[in-house]
Amino acid sequence: MIFKELIKRKRDGQKLSSEEIDWIVKEFTSGKIPSYQMSAFLMAIYFQGLDDQETLALTKSMLESGETITIPSDLPLVDKHSTGGIGDKVSLILSPVLAEMGLNVAMLSGRALGFTGGTADKLESTGMKVELTPEEIEESVKRFGFSISTQTENVAPADRKIYALRDATATVESIPLIVASILSKKLAINTESIVFDVKVGTGAFMKTLKDAEKLAQGLVNVSKLYGKKAAALITEMSQPLGEYAGNALEVKETLSALSGEISPDLLEIVTSLCGSLYQLSDLGTFECGKNLAKEVILSGKAYERFVNWIEFWGGSLNLPTAKNIIKVKSEKEGWISNINGERLGYLIIEMGGGRKKADDAIDYSVGLRFFKKIGDFVKKGEVIGEIYCSEIKHEYINSFLSAYEFSSSPVDSPNLIKKSIV
Amino acid sequence: MIFKELIKRKRDGQKLSSEEIDWIVKEFTSGKIPSYQMSAFLMAIYFQGLDDQETLALTKSMLESGETITIPSDLPLVDKHSTGGIGDKVSLILSPVLAEMGLNVAMLSGRALGFTGGTADKLESTGMKVELTPEEIEESVKRFGFSISTQTENVAPADRKIYALRDATATVESIPLIVASILSKKLAINTESIVFDVKVGTGAFMKTLKDAEKLAQGLVNVSKLYGKKAAALITEMSQPLGEYAGNALEVKETLSALSGEISPDLLEIVTSLCGSLYQLSDLGTFECGKNLAKEVILSGKAYERFVNWIEFWGGSLNLPTAKNIIKVKSEKEGWISNINGERLGYLIIEMGGGRKKADDAIDYSVGLRFFKKIGDFVKKGEVIGEIYCSEIKHEYINSFLSAYEFSSSPVDSPNLIKKSIV
Repeated sequence: MIFKELIKRKRDGQKLSSEEIDWIVKEFTSGKIPSYQMSAFLMAIYFQGLDDQETLALTKSMLESGETITIPSDLPLVDKHSTGGIGDKVSLILSPVLAEMGLNVAMLSGRALGFTGGTADKLESTGMKVELTPEEIEESVKRFGFSISTQTENVAPADRKIYALRDATATVESIPLIVASILSKKLAINTESIVFDVKVGTGAFMKTLKDAEKLAQGLVNVSKLYGKKAAALITEMSQPLGEYAGNALEVKETLSALSGEISPDLLEIVTSLCGSLYQLSDLGTFECGKNLAKEVILSGKAYERFVNWIEFWGGSLNLPTAKNIIKVKSEKEGWISNINGERLGYLIIEMGGGRKKADDAIDYSVGLRFFKKIGDFVKKGEVIGEIYCSEIKHEYINSFLSAYEFSSSPVDSPNLIKKSIV
Repeated sequence: MIFKELIKRKRDGQKLSSEEIDWIVKEFTSGKIPSYQMSAFLMAIYFQGLDDQETLALTKSMLESGETITIPSDLPLVDKHSTGGIGDKVSLILSPVLAEMGLNVAMLSGRALGFTGGTADKLESTGMKVELTPEEIEESVKRFGFSISTQTENVAPADRKIYALRDATATVESIPLIVASILSKKLAINTESIVFDVKVGTGAFMKTLKDAEKLAQGLVNVSKLYGKKAAALITEMSQPLGEYAGNALEVKETLSALSGEISPDLLEIVTSLCGSLYQLSDLGTFECGKNLAKEVILSGKAYERFVNWIEFWGGSLNLPTAKNIIKVKSEKEGWISNINGERLGYLIIEMGGGRKKADDAIDYSVGLRFFKKIGDFVKKGEVIGEIYCSEIKHEYINSFLSAYEFSSSPVDSPNLIKKSIV
């Protein structure tokens, strides 16, 4: 094959065969295709797209570039993937709840990416071990019904090499490339069913419902073509999810949630995702699964399972706490109409709670608390939130306040679940 | 500046400033921007285009990466550029004719590219020197009123580096990139007026009138923005131009043409381009210039000037001749409706008359002769052309014949000048 001809065909909107795509991934990963041709190809994909068959081929080739993990399980083995958002501690709450509901969870999770936090980073604020071997994942599932660990370097190395090139060449924002990148890691483990939580709004990577729908549909279609059961929910992210954002603060919020004290938005999202996996696993209807999850959470049944799990992997509930807490007062009056999660995410990074470079150390204690949500009326001078930080800086307050938009007339609280895709 | 952000802006269809484009060209040429980013940028341009201002900025930056040449001239100094086609020996005929008409010509010409021949290669079949220094160009213009030489390595090195990357990444076929590439070399010399002969048809790079118009308009607009007088003719290339194609054969045809024996299509194209330059140089109307050129050609006035020029630069009219001449007989009957110049061009390369690789030696003697044109009626068994070759191969005849399409009903001879753009 001549790669230049394949670039030209994709450039001209033609379809490539699975063999051609597999050849490209293998040649690029082994260094036989130069980066300057690959980046032109990726930009051609940005403009011309890939159909589901092509995306499946790309996913498979990247997946097969690395190791796959098989976890034996008598119960249905499931997974959840979120595209990431501010305050998204759903994985932490959902996993022990699903285990309580008779499902096994084997989740490979990433570290913080861009302005959003990473589940693995949050767990590391407890001091627990998050880099597990396949044998350890198996042990965690066997003992606790669930496992959350980072994906190792051995999973989908081709995706890592391609992603680095995309990051340098403005070709990250391509739906089929995002789909293939996510799935090349998600499908590397033998889960039967996956639910995708595709976030939409100012605090998500997908800013419009149209883009979120495309991404959700792509994830579901390609997962199914691969042979998995899959569904997606498109969920609200034009404001933070729950009450806290920040690593240790979100673990703390998870502990409250699992003992029954949970904010309504978080409850709705977690139980809906559980309902979806319950249905995919043929255990009952969506509503039945959702109600069961709600019952588990509000009764506090999953709390101990979660705590035991953390302690088993060396973690402690003695979480790091911030030196200072700044109460933030509103400078405006009105109904909150938007809370820009991207700004809040960057504020957390600025305070040391995330990474600017891949090897930056994280201050797990820092973060934010939100007292008010979209639709709430706020008076001037009213405390709307808290900033947890090690150093008090006035610019933190300004950044926090700049994320809030107000309306002079009442604003509806947004629907949490925008759309369900199967 | 952060190049990734500039790639993103172009990807999203935004305009870049002249300073930004100049920065990109300089950073890439000096090796500070890696090829993998540049190729993604070029692919983004392929899809989003460049407007005339951006194309001017790119042209200027590439031009300024190398040397510029100033030729003193009392008479108006002009140039002609053709986008290339089969049998296109127009530069050879036009230059001495313009000199005879009171214009000076300083032309930098390329070697064969793809399936079309190169003026410099044709001239080299005489053994003459075609790589001239600026001083030699000046001398040629002073003595003969015209000069045709290859552009040196010192002209627009940035264009060469960018072109090599485009060639490997399927980003050659972008009109603004083609415009900038042509002009970065054409504008490097202080000619006052340029006429562009943009070929359209099966034997040209531009296959459709729409693309040819875009290219012609781009060349004229950007040349004018740069401060030159410019015009373009879009001319027929769905059949070879004139009677011969091949290096020495085209020089031979030029000698005949300059002594008054010229095929009607060649006469029309050459005199129209001369008329256009006459008008651009404010010497008179287009028609007046065209008639004057016709008079010069048919009277044989420019013949001696051309011969003296070749001999002055070390060439000889004792041209190489092919070992074998195959007469090609038609296997079909009907009116010729198309003659695919691209196939004929590749046949010449196959026979050794062009280059497959940049350092291939050329057999100047090989080539083709055409007795019939579009609209002519041909009987089965009638001789329609000749193949000049060193080895007789049956596949040459098949290739030759495969270029011809026939119609069972009469076909009009195509208009030679499709459009004039000013």
